[in-house]
Amino acid sequence: MRSFNFSAGPAILPESVIKNAQQMLWDAKDSGIGILEHSHRGKVFVDILAETKANIRTLASVPDEYEILFLQGGASSQFFMLPMNFLKGGTADYINTGTWSKKAIKEAQKFGTVNVPSTGEHNGFTEVPTKHKFSSNPVYVHFTSNNTIAGTEFHAEPEAPSGAWLACDASSDIFSRKIDISKYGMVYAGAQKNLGPSGVTLVIIRKDLVETGAEDLPTMLQYRTHVAKDSAFNTPPTFGIYIIGEVVKWLLSSGGLTHIESYNKNKADLLYNYVDSSDLFYGTAKEGSRSLMNVCFRCKDETKEAEFIAAAAKEGLVNLKGHRSVGGMRASIYNAFPVAGVEALVAFMKKFEGRV
Amino acid sequence: MRSFNFSAGPAILPESVIKNAQQMLWDAKDSGIGILEHSHRGKVFVDILAETKANIRTLASVPDEYEILFLQGGASSQFFMLPMNFLKGGTADYINTGTWSKKAIKEAQKFGTVNVPSTGEHNGFTEVPTKHKFSSNPVYVHFTSNNTIAGTEFHAEPEAPSGAWLACDASSDIFSRKIDISKYGMVYAGAQKNLGPSGVTLVIIRKDLVETGAEDLPTMLQYRTHVAKDSAFNTPPTFGIYIIGEVVKWLLSSGGLTHIESYNKNKADLLYNYVDSSDLFYGTAKEGSRSLMNVCFRCKDETKEAEFIAAAAKEGLVNLKGHRSVGGMRASIYNAFPVAGVEALVAFMKKFEGRV
Repeated sequence: MRSFNFSAGPAILPESVIKNAQQMLWDAKDSGIGILEHSHRGKVFVDILAETKANIRTLASVPDEYEILFLQGGASSQFFMLPMNFLKGGTADYINTGTWSKKAIKEAQKFGTVNVPSTGEHNGFTEVPTKHKFSSNPVYVHFTSNNTIAGTEFHAEPEAPSGAWLACDASSDIFSRKIDISKYGMVYAGAQKNLGPSGVTLVIIRKDLVETGAEDLPTMLQYRTHVAKDSAFNTPPTFGIYIIGEVVKWLLSSGGLTHIESYNKNKADLLYNYVDSSDLFYGTAKEGSRSLMNVCFRCKDETKEAEFIAAAAKEGLVNLKGHRSVGGMRASIYNAFPVAGVEALVAFMKKFEGRV
Repeated sequence: MRSFNFSAGPAILPESVIKNAQQMLWDAKDSGIGILEHSHRGKVFVDILAETKANIRTLASVPDEYEILFLQGGASSQFFMLPMNFLKGGTADYINTGTWSKKAIKEAQKFGTVNVPSTGEHNGFTEVPTKHKFSSNPVYVHFTSNNTIAGTEFHAEPEAPSGAWLACDASSDIFSRKIDISKYGMVYAGAQKNLGPSGVTLVIIRKDLVETGAEDLPTMLQYRTHVAKDSAFNTPPTFGIYIIGEVVKWLLSSGGLTHIESYNKNKADLLYNYVDSSDLFYGTAKEGSRSLMNVCFRCKDETKEAEFIAAAAKEGLVNLKGHRSVGGMRASIYNAFPVAGVEALVAFMKKFEGRV
């Protein structure tokens, strides 16, 4: 019996994807070889890689001017690789929406000047800034589209000043809604929330930017290396790419980003509406900034939180504890999280509150 | 029906490991959550990480003075991370045994002076050098313990000059035989040959070296970051670490490195003995340098090679084609490759040669 897993990441995957993967582990596509054991230069994996890229291009309408890469090292490695390649002692603007933005800022400062055009720090990162004081000529503007810890999300991209491109850490809301890739220079996302297992990072990057990257870097740290070798300069994380491919196929067959956006909005509304109507619970993110992926809430009587989390777990509603830096509760309801799980959580909250 | 998979990597895994993984994908240890979907901060994965480290320590008698890390980016990322941390403009000696050594040399040259104390280039890398002209005071001596392309292997470590430590890319023979870790400053290995799936790199490093690493580096590129956070500074490749853990348990329960060494020697002997006795086939690596992991051989009449490879594949003996840079045949027979597969290959070679 599988639980309803509200983990912030690694996170729940579609059950059909898991079932296919079980079979593929033993024998991938009747090749007589399991998916973990296939050479990255062999036809089975090469086809999976090509199909996955093509399907991502379809799913998110990625223009031809963009490359799709699968790298390693998580978003944390993009925090330094991005400025290492493109900052070159110049200035970039980093919107500060919390823990992950700060980590990105810290790494960028090693390669140039970071201007913070806006921050949510003064109100505990409970809302995303909408007004930004950009520097005069930044190379790029970086933002974190969804903030897993504070439970906030940009519902529209910030508009970068003329001449600057947008860079986005979309680890926790990639492909959870329609996205206009042409607004971005680069979008990156660790896979372990909305795309697949940990250990693979999706990077979508404008081709013309790739060639402007610094050249005096280790080979593995230049985007051009991975573009030239189609993410297989060295052995890529083949299993992670395979799972991403399955998740993307699942998204496409479910109706694409238009469908998943309304599905996600419906799930989040169910939960926020109950929280807003509750006498015991309240949401921590401000309206207009509320994440559809990570719903953060607390008990007005905080002493009840530990009891709530433990009692929920007994009912198969697990990993509801908020991030240790903020406390409270967090329900991560990424793409693959089923509406039935949200309904079960709301029903349990009602019961816990004594409403039923 | 699974084939006998002679792939050089990603490569064959123990079937018992695959079968356990199939179950764990759906529900890991009766947690109600699949292994891909477990938080890296949760008890299930934290226990797996701790157990895997402890079992590696037991398997290879890793002294307390060494850390065991799981990183991303393959051995190719260690090619730069090692010199980036420790070279600091100094000199290191890199023994050149072929393609992978050269790649390591290229990256190290970006951070200091590389002296090549010995090379097998003059004889096409068909043997590993035994005499070395070390520089006067290298920081470390680097070697590639097994060379997958040329099919050569060091059967004893080179002896580093006083004051220098040994660094080893052991990607293709890690834990295939007994190893005295105390001889090394650092051993690293991409997992996808002898340890697990691609996307995770095992690093065993002397604790006192970690702290001498350069400090002005991106956080993710400092070994101290990963030591301080027990390989979980950011989300580690959890599934890859789980599989490594299962492979290590399989090695321990099979009799440890003493057993696997004799098992591997037996498999390689079977194949080399036949090749040496053959009128059609011959081995390419020189005696004394022959790899127990990658047996490279050719047909005296090279026009027969394509036919041999295709006919073998029809018999379920797959991925026997040599690396594109050298041609011929290569039978990769890592730890998990069964003796039955080597026997089947020898029987097929006899038949192909017309001996039976």
